[in-house]
This record gives sequence, C-alpha cells and structure tokens, in this order.
Amino acid sequence: MTTIGVLGGGQLGRMLILAGAPLGLRFRVLDHTADAPAGRLAELVVGDFTDPATLDRFAAGLDLVTLEFENVPLGAARSLAERLPVYPPPRALEVAQDRVREKRCFQELGIPTPDWRPAESASELRKGVAELGLPVIAKTQRLGYDGKGQRVLRSEADVGPTWDQLGGRPLIVETLVPFEREVSILAVRCRHGKAAHYPLVENVHEHGILRRSQAPALYATGELQVQAQNYAKKLLEALDYVGVLAIEFFVHGGRLLANEMAPRVHNSGHWTIEGAETSQFENHLRAILGWPLGSTAPRGHSVMYNLIGTLPPMAPVLRIEGTHVHLYGKAPRPGRKLGHITVRADDAETLEARVQALQESMNRFEAK
Amino acid sequence: MTTIGVLGGGQLGRMLILAGAPLGLRFRVLDHTADAPAGRLAELVVGDFTDPATLDRFAAGLDLVTLEFENVPLGAARSLAERLPVYPPPRALEVAQDRVREKRCFQELGIPTPDWRPAESASELRKGVAELGLPVIAKTQRLGYDGKGQRVLRSEADVGPTWDQLGGRPLIVETLVPFEREVSILAVRCRHGKAAHYPLVENVHEHGILRRSQAPALYATGELQVQAQNYAKKLLEALDYVGVLAIEFFVHGGRLLANEMAPRVHNSGHWTIEGAETSQFENHLRAILGWPLGSTAPRGHSVMYNLIGTLPPMAPVLRIEGTHVHLYGKAPRPGRKLGHITVRADDAETLEARVQALQESMNRFEAK
Repeated sequence: MTTIGVLGGGQLGRMLILAGAPLGLRFRVLDHTADAPAGRLAELVVGDFTDPATLDRFAAGLDLVTLEFENVPLGAARSLAERLPVYPPPRALEVAQDRVREKRCFQELGIPTPDWRPAESASELRKGVAELGLPVIAKTQRLGYDGKGQRVLRSEADVGPTWDQLGGRPLIVETLVPFEREVSILAVRCRHGKAAHYPLVENVHEHGILRRSQAPALYATGELQVQAQNYAKKLLEALDYVGVLAIEFFVHGGRLLANEMAPRVHNSGHWTIEGAETSQFENHLRAILGWPLGSTAPRGHSVMYNLIGTLPPMAPVLRIEGTHVHLYGKAPRPGRKLGHITVRADDAETLEARVQALQESMNRFEAK
Repeated sequence: MTTIGVLGGGQLGRMLILAGAPLGLRFRVLDHTADAPAGRLAELVVGDFTDPATLDRFAAGLDLVTLEFENVPLGAARSLAERLPVYPPPRALEVAQDRVREKRCFQELGIPTPDWRPAESASELRKGVAELGLPVIAKTQRLGYDGKGQRVLRSEADVGPTWDQLGGRPLIVETLVPFEREVSILAVRCRHGKAAHYPLVENVHEHGILRRSQAPALYATGELQVQAQNYAKKLLEALDYVGVLAIEFFVHGGRLLANEMAPRVHNSGHWTIEGAETSQFENHLRAILGWPLGSTAPRGHSVMYNLIGTLPPMAPVLRIEGTHVHLYGKAPRPGRKLGHITVRADDAETLEARVQALQESMNRFEAK
C-alpha cells in the first residue's frame, strides 16, 4: 500500500487525506502541533521541520512526499528530495516563498503583473514608492499569508512608518491595482507531464482573507480562460511542476495581472469537491502518483464561503438544498479559517437563489 | 464535538467516517478485528460485542451509537440503548435479523413478497416445498448475507440434503420468483420523523453478491417508484426508524415483491457518493443527529461496480472520464468486496459509453 507523507497538517492536508483514503492511500503527516486537523485521520509526526531526526522519523517507509503549505523550510524539502520523490518540486517552493523571485519568474515567462519594486531598506522603500506613485501595497518578501505582513500605502504619511511596522524585513512594493475582479486558476500537472485546468474561479477577499469563491466565474470570457491557461501552462513547464498549482490574478482593464501563486491545493479550489467531476485534492494525488488525471469539468455552478473566526449554527445552513458543510476541527479564533460551505446547483439561477438563502441565514447569525 | 460510536468497522463504517469528518464529527468504531477498514480513520475498540466490559469501554463518552451491519447481537444493541441513543432502533435490528419476522412485518404492512413458509425441521422443509412447489430457495432464518446460508432447490432430489447442508438450523423456504429485474430503494428518516427517498436503483447480483447497480434505474416507471416509496414509508413508520434503510425488491409481472431489508447504509447506495446531491452516508448521519436531511436528487446517471476478490489495475480505470474509485483497504480473498467503482455522467447515453469502456477494461484484466 502506498504511503504518502504530507508536510503540514492543516485543513488542506486533512482534505487530501479524505480524498486519498478511497484511492487506497495511506498518509503520514508532519506538523509542529499535536492537534493538527489532519492528524485525526492519519499517522501524525509532531516535530520541527528543520530537525534532521524528525525528518528521518517522518520519511521512514514513505513512498513519496507532498506538502500543504508553501512555507515549508526549503532545507527540509531538499533533504527529503534526496531520498524520496517530493512533489511539487522544491524549486517551485523556492520561487513561491519569495515574492521577488515569484514576480521575476512571472516576468521571465511573459506573465503580466502589477508594477513592482524590491525594497531591501527604508530608503529603497521610499524610492520604490516614488517610482510607482501612490497608492501602493508593501508586502514582506517572505512568509506572508491571508493578508498578514502587508500594508496599503495611500498617502505620503503612510510611507515613513511602514518599514518598521512590517518588521524591518525585505519588502516588495507593488502598484495598488484598482482591479475589477479577482480570479484564480487551478492547474494540475502529472509526473508524466500531462496537464489539466479547472475553469476560472471568481474570488472575493475581505481583510486579505478569501471570503467567497464562485466557479465557473460567471463573467469570465473564453478569452480570459485561455489567457489563464496559457500562463498556468508556462509556469507548470518552467518549474517542471507536479501536482496542483493555483495562480491568483487581478482582472484590470479586461486583462489578467498575476498577483501570486500557491504551489499546492488552494482555498479557491474547495468548490471542486462537489462542484467538479474530480476534486483538486484527488487530482493532486493522481498527479503526484503518476496516475491518469481525472476530469476537471465543472458539475453545475458552485459558490464557496469560508467560515472565518466563528461557526454559524448548522441546521439553517443544511436546510438549504445543495449546501455542503466542511468543518476542519479547529478551535474558533478571530481570523481563523474554521471550515467552508459550498452551495451547488445545476444552473446559475438556482444557485443564486440558494446563495441568497444562505446569505440571509448567515446574516441573521452575524447580526446577533 | 459530537462523537458517534459505530458498531462494526467494515467498509460501510469507513465510508460513514469519510462522510462525517467534514461535518465535524468524531467516530469510535467497535470491531472484533484489529485490521478493520474503518479503524484507520477513527479510534478503534477491538473486542467482542457480547462482552459487557468491551461495551462499557466503547460507550464511554459517546453521544450516540449507530451500526454498519445488521447482525449486531441484539443484547449489545439493547444494552447500549439503555444508556445512549441507538439508531436505527434495536427493534429494527430484531426484525431484519430474522427472515421470518421480516416477512411477517412485510405482510402486516401489506408489502407483497414471494410466497414463503417457515421450516423449523427437515419435515417442515419438505412440507413447505410441497406447498409452494419447486423451484424454491431455502435460506437460514438468521445470519445469512451475500448469498451465504442459501440454496436453490430445483428438483425433488435437492430437497433431501438441504436441511443438513444448511446446518440443521431454522429455515425459510420461498418461491423462486422468475423476476424480470431486481431493484432497491434507499430511504432515510430523521429523528424528527421527516423522511426522504433516493430514486430506485437497478441491481445485478452474481452468486448472491451484488455486482452492479445503476441509478436512477432506467426503466423504472414513476409507478414503481411511488410503490417503493410507499412501502418504505410504511416500514420506516412502523419501526419508528431513524437512519438509512434499504429495501430490495424483485420486479415480477411489473410489480414489486419485497425480498429483504437492510437497516443500515447499503451497497446499492454507494453510487450516491458522486451520483446524488447528498450521499447515503451523509444523510444517515444527518438523520441520526436530527439535522435537516440533504437533497436526495440524483446528479446525472451512475453505475456502480463492486470489486470482488481481486483488484484490477487502476490506471486504465481512472483514465475513463467520470470514474471514481473506492478501495476499502482489505486484503484480497475470493468473494470478498474489496472496493467499488462508480461511473457517472450527466446523461444516460454518455454513461453507457463510459460503462462500455470500463467493462472492456475490466474484461481485459479478467481474461488474463
């Protein structure tokens, strides 16, 4: 029986395990906490990713290794890659972990992005802001997620304190794009090089955290889909990528500007569990195992809501036809992703009615 | 967090757990073997169902108890029901465990069945056969499954040895119905009394084991569906049933004859994982928790194949669009259900083409 090691035991790892169990796969999870959500469904190794003895214990007897968060220490991924297949490859992590490398990679492949400047110091930050013109967004080059490690700079008065506020760490400054919409594409590439794509997803973020995804993105013209697929194809090939890759874009002036990529299954792909013939989780596993990829065709229309910070009462939600609840088994905490709800329907009109009902149910709860 | 105890740790328990984890549920499984398929995804208590200390250990801290096989010792179910909600209720087990009680229950509710006679001795067996006329099928009254504990009697010469061949245990003799088709209905009833039904499924058995299910059953007229729903409704109410209940029917002369019921999630409902809006596993859990039931609407058309005895190579199967593989993690053994494959498509014609491709792939493997 094939045993897959997963670096990280969060909800993404948990959903990988739930998708892999029916395929006859076993899993071992490495996480630094004993109550990791994925740990209840698989063998859990608790320890530090940079500790060689922990890595040895984790690696013993595994057939291959994958990951569920991109900030896996690169040394750990490389050390594992010396003895086992590691997918996606450490090179993809290296690019995704550093916003400057990532932007350069997009640039080299002809994938447009907002204008940007690196800023290794407070004075470089001021220089970058002057060159780009306000408003801009400053982000730490490394270890940012869910809106953490970023600040929007709208006036000159915002510029001065930013370097210290973001911890005096290397930054990237980007033009703040007045985008019309945010979309993402989920692409998957198999060990044998075959690739597939899901339809574009439209995303809504609040305070830097994904709130809602709709798939297929209703307004997305065939042209945007083709553009996104072409960009994804270039990235997958340039990185010799294996597994699911997500790319987030701004839609600005009717064209795509790449914001960032995630070398893993992605929150904007959770709708695929019910809304596509094969989920992103199953396709990630099929890809890293060298199995044929499953159909990425959508099944009707889906909207996914993240449950952030608190959980609404479940009965009113479950009463709405086509709703599917996914809880991660995490303790409530402000800003924490505790679960998600996907609403599915065969057509967009029925979906809209169900989404309205769900929205009303959630508003009633939030108003209390 | 709600913790559900499951009596039995086979594939049905495993699929209940896979459906329940996203709902935020925890599970504890009681099985008499340490390598029970469900045991890898939940806490496993290994022991004898009739041992009070084992039952105490199993029950401690649970919120409610369900089961995944109907031959749970009745004493164990009743002992648990004194301290915890047990769904389906022990009364339903009592009826389903005994083919004579079951047939009487059908009879009392006006649900037609093949003609039958109880046979508590070899002479009663001869008398029953004489009254019904050959051919008949003789079955042990208790503990039969997957064609075990049954014999078809076609000639007078078959009658003599049957009593001993079936172990000298109480039997039931039934007219062997030259049925046109076999169908089943999956019904579900909530703690609050609300019920729902899936569409009729057409089943094909080989050597007494379910081989293939198709849903919705293509030829099933609205009339048969209504008949099946009415029978299910009567049973659910008479037994004050909570959870999923399956009833298997013969179609003979265009009407339904009840063959048997299963007070649990059922093999002929596995297609619901991909082929219905809400799976039988999720709806069983919603029902026993008193949550709103999920939509039982089919999503396109599905065919499910059981993988019995051996597993075919997976790549050719996964290459066919719309196939979904479910392996149970059991060691191969002749006649053993090791997994199933569901093929799904939006329309019946596309499904037929995919089923053909799957059949050819399986035949090539079986011919080797």
